[in-house]
Amino acid sequence: MLDASARELDPYQAGCPTRRILDLIGGRWTVLIVGALGEGTARFSELLRRVDGISQKMLTQTLRSMERDGLVIRTVTAEVPVKVEYTLSEAGRTLTEPLRALERWSIEHFSGVAASRSEYESRIAG
Amino acid sequence: MLDASARELDPYQAGCPTRRILDLIGGRWTVLIVGALGEGTARFSELLRRVDGISQKMLTQTLRSMERDGLVIRTVTAEVPVKVEYTLSEAGRTLTEPLRALERWSIEHFSGVAASRSEYESRIAG
Repeated sequence: MLDASARELDPYQAGCPTRRILDLIGGRWTVLIVGALGEGTARFSELLRRVDGISQKMLTQTLRSMERDGLVIRTVTAEVPVKVEYTLSEAGRTLTEPLRALERWSIEHFSGVAASRSEYESRIAG
Repeated sequence: MLDASARELDPYQAGCPTRRILDLIGGRWTVLIVGALGEGTARFSELLRRVDGISQKMLTQTLRSMERDGLVIRTVTAEVPVKVEYTLSEAGRTLTEPLRALERWSIEHFSGVAASRSEYESRIAG
């Protein structure tokens, strides 16, 4: 059920604030981090390993945006060294399925996309 | 069913080419254009109106990428003036549902995300 404000939101309208949300949740790193946290709570260093190739800076920034937007909960435990863990919030968990669908689509359709690209390039060149 | 090459693809690995596909399909404009074309074939000018605020240049570029990747079919009819229409390909149609799910998520969770943002900002400032 949509509330009153949600009924007025329309991402097809310029200036609709949902467009910024679309940018965030559809981004490559959010897709992969939500997927990784869908497997369970993780520490920063575990996410850094799981999402191979992400820089520390990009992981920090993306996690901070996701925390700010209420997708991720950051828990700090006073140990030595301090333990910092990340968990999907309830809202974040509702994103798991749609984003996994994108992940699956990318894998399943990769060879078709690659074939289409090379066919297109040779058509343009020819 | 995944074919042999698809089984080796893993977007969690750096350098996996599916990451570029994720970037494309999760992008704000692709989400909205696939949604618009999910309602049926459209001309360039119709898409420009439907996806309010997109520039001509961005629409041209995004449609070209989508055509190259095999998501969209471009049909030119020899009329005066020339009629150019865009339709989702079979692969493009398989994206409609997952991308509509993202669109719906953005609308349904907007007020929660906005509330979380302002709570976060005041916590940081405080």
